[in-house]
Amino acid sequence: ESHKVVTNQTHRYKLVSFKFDHVEVPYVICLWILLACIAKIGFHLYDKLPHVFPESCLLITLGILVGVTLFFTETASSGQYTLNANTFFLFLLPPIIYDAGYHMPNRAFFNNIGTILLLAVVNTLWNTIGIGMCLYGMSCLGWIHSSISLLHCFVFSSLISAVDPVAVLAIFEEIQVNEILYIIVFGESLLNDGVTVVLYHMMDGFTEIGEANLEIVDFVTGFAQFFIVVFGGTLIGVVYGLVGAFITKYTDHVRVLEPLFVFVLGYLAYLTAESMELSGILALTFGGIVMRHYSELNMAKKSTTTVKYFMKMLANISETIIFMFLGLSTVIDSHDFRLDFVLFSLLFCLVFRVTGVMMLSWLVNQRRLIRLSAIDQFIMSYGGLRGGIAFCLALLLNAEHIPERQMFVTTTTVIVFFTVFVQGITIKPVVNALKVERAEEVDT
Amino acid sequence: ESHKVVTNQTHRYKLVSFKFDHVEVPYVICLWILLACIAKIGFHLYDKLPHVFPESCLLITLGILVGVTLFFTETASSGQYTLNANTFFLFLLPPIIYDAGYHMPNRAFFNNIGTILLLAVVNTLWNTIGIGMCLYGMSCLGWIHSSISLLHCFVFSSLISAVDPVAVLAIFEEIQVNEILYIIVFGESLLNDGVTVVLYHMMDGFTEIGEANLEIVDFVTGFAQFFIVVFGGTLIGVVYGLVGAFITKYTDHVRVLEPLFVFVLGYLAYLTAESMELSGILALTFGGIVMRHYSELNMAKKSTTTVKYFMKMLANISETIIFMFLGLSTVIDSHDFRLDFVLFSLLFCLVFRVTGVMMLSWLVNQRRLIRLSAIDQFIMSYGGLRGGIAFCLALLLNAEHIPERQMFVTTTTVIVFFTVFVQGITIKPVVNALKVERAEEVDT
Repeated sequence: ESHKVVTNQTHRYKLVSFKFDHVEVPYVICLWILLACIAKIGFHLYDKLPHVFPESCLLITLGILVGVTLFFTETASSGQYTLNANTFFLFLLPPIIYDAGYHMPNRAFFNNIGTILLLAVVNTLWNTIGIGMCLYGMSCLGWIHSSISLLHCFVFSSLISAVDPVAVLAIFEEIQVNEILYIIVFGESLLNDGVTVVLYHMMDGFTEIGEANLEIVDFVTGFAQFFIVVFGGTLIGVVYGLVGAFITKYTDHVRVLEPLFVFVLGYLAYLTAESMELSGILALTFGGIVMRHYSELNMAKKSTTTVKYFMKMLANISETIIFMFLGLSTVIDSHDFRLDFVLFSLLFCLVFRVTGVMMLSWLVNQRRLIRLSAIDQFIMSYGGLRGGIAFCLALLLNAEHIPERQMFVTTTTVIVFFTVFVQGITIKPVVNALKVERAEEVDT
Repeated sequence: ESHKVVTNQTHRYKLVSFKFDHVEVPYVICLWILLACIAKIGFHLYDKLPHVFPESCLLITLGILVGVTLFFTETASSGQYTLNANTFFLFLLPPIIYDAGYHMPNRAFFNNIGTILLLAVVNTLWNTIGIGMCLYGMSCLGWIHSSISLLHCFVFSSLISAVDPVAVLAIFEEIQVNEILYIIVFGESLLNDGVTVVLYHMMDGFTEIGEANLEIVDFVTGFAQFFIVVFGGTLIGVVYGLVGAFITKYTDHVRVLEPLFVFVLGYLAYLTAESMELSGILALTFGGIVMRHYSELNMAKKSTTTVKYFMKMLANISETIIFMFLGLSTVIDSHDFRLDFVLFSLLFCLVFRVTGVMMLSWLVNQRRLIRLSAIDQFIMSYGGLRGGIAFCLALLLNAEHIPERQMFVTTTTVIVFFTVFVQGITIKPVVNALKVERAEEVDT
């Protein structure tokens, strides 16, 4: 069809022809990746920029600028330039989490597992219940003008409560606090996914059933589901990790394929967990921990190097794209901005984060050898960043069941921006001012 | 929708739910990759198997076995388990060619460029014209029962004439002949892509225009197109390679992204060339050569290691999947097997391969320092393997314009199988018997 031109009633064979449509999807993806990479190089050409602003902020800003350009040139009418929630969960999130699990400092992680679990489970619950109740209260009092049902308040609070591992990684890798503080905040952000998945799906399911039809049995199911989601996700990760350990015992003659097993099995663990609505993040985290622990010794040195650097590369580019598209989506998506709801949400997010951390720190300090100081607690509260996961969960809400969806998306965006920009930019000076014990610079 | 179960007139919240559909595509792809990898490990568990049979044969056989299983369990009614020509050209072929270009032994390649080009251009033309004319002759004489027009004979001969780089790589890497012989056959298989692209598109375009409407100007256009396709493809590759060289000068602060530039720019070169119907293979080959030459020194040691091993891994898995799916497609696709056409095609493929090689060897031997011996010429003829490219080009034919499409596909399959199995299995004993000078085993 692209070969013919009409001249003198008959077609002539054409010297040059174009058929862009069948290469368009990979082409556009490659161009975005290239743009993101070049932007990163650009930031580092001027030394001062990344010293003051974290990379995540610069990327969001770039995304906003690109968005404004697209908006005014009116090329972005269709939704193809916004962050798609499915793309996010299927392709962008897994590399980051798997990299985090695979390169987890195991000793620090398991030494602090009690504190991490307590924060991940109890603190997330505390935040969800607290933020949800308070927002509902404000709505009843009329301080928030829109009237929102309790259930819908909980839908919102369940997605906004969890600390985001991608945002935490991006900021904490730059400020270089000591390993214990880092692993506690980052560990919390990974392990709270189990709680978030359950709460989010439960609230989402409840809105479908309808508030009036809920019975005690539904809450019991939700509670039981928590254990299934957490232990099921972890188990799937461990099993795939062990499969990897088993397979790599027999790869002496096909060394070249060893990295592939690490990547494919990790991804399969995530997809399996996701398809069963278990915690994919827990599957990836523990899959990565087990995979590295048992299979690294089976592999050739060159394979482990390849795995390490390619995984870091994938995680890095995913993170870059996530932040860039967060900025881009903000400009292009339509918004429902309600100042009262936004301000109260932000307030309660801060209040319950701080109170939760203080309460739980007091509790764990009864038994910890290395106590969490007041400064530690401040950094833990201050490092409770929100990010892409919350944003995409908000996007995934069904507007038919939750008419406030658009408002929730906008509010989530504001909270993400606030934590990433305000907290992200000021955390470094704060850490310096408070003289938090910092990690020694380690050359990787 | 997956959350609700109907009990007692109202929905209850469900403890466990599945939603497989949104993860299906990546899941199935990962499973295929895993299966292919495990099969490769399996072959090497029994030492004798890969000593006698080349891996490509084992993989095709495995594909056939899987195909038979799927066929009798009737799960393969839809076309989702056959080799899709678009998938092949968009995703499976590029990693193999880019790896070949990137790791090209430059000195040997450019020392023999004259011989390689002569074989790639003249030999491919000789084969196309010879096979096409002879098949048409046989059809006119009635020795082939189906009556095929001259143009359709040329369509078939244009896709079956080119030596396949994937098949050549798979076999020649195992038999370890000396570097000159290897680079001549392999170089030919890479560079003849320009000729194949032009001839195939020209014949395909001509059938659309219709035999009766062809004029001299169309042939002139086709001849001119040859230079555009070859030099355009090469130019695009060189340009993207130079862009990579330029960008990697500035990656000191983002070392982690360096491998990404190599992969993304190479792939963009291929996609750009393909979208303009230039030779993507030439773009990748020369893109790889230039990229490595100019950017490797800019990159960190760890980045080059990552690039090297990850590229080899991608190429290896692509090759594995191609051969496996070749076997699979054979079982599942419907066939139109005509013994007369198949046998004559096979005969002419062999005859014109041998005569072409002999003729051109005589010609180049007038000027070469290291002459091509009779044994060399035999291996060059014998190593003229056909493979996945021919098969996918046959698949891409439009049955509306070429009613013989199904017969062409089946015949191509037989010829591919003949070269891969008969020539592939016997080439090693033949090399040993003829005492061809072999490459020293080099540890990579």
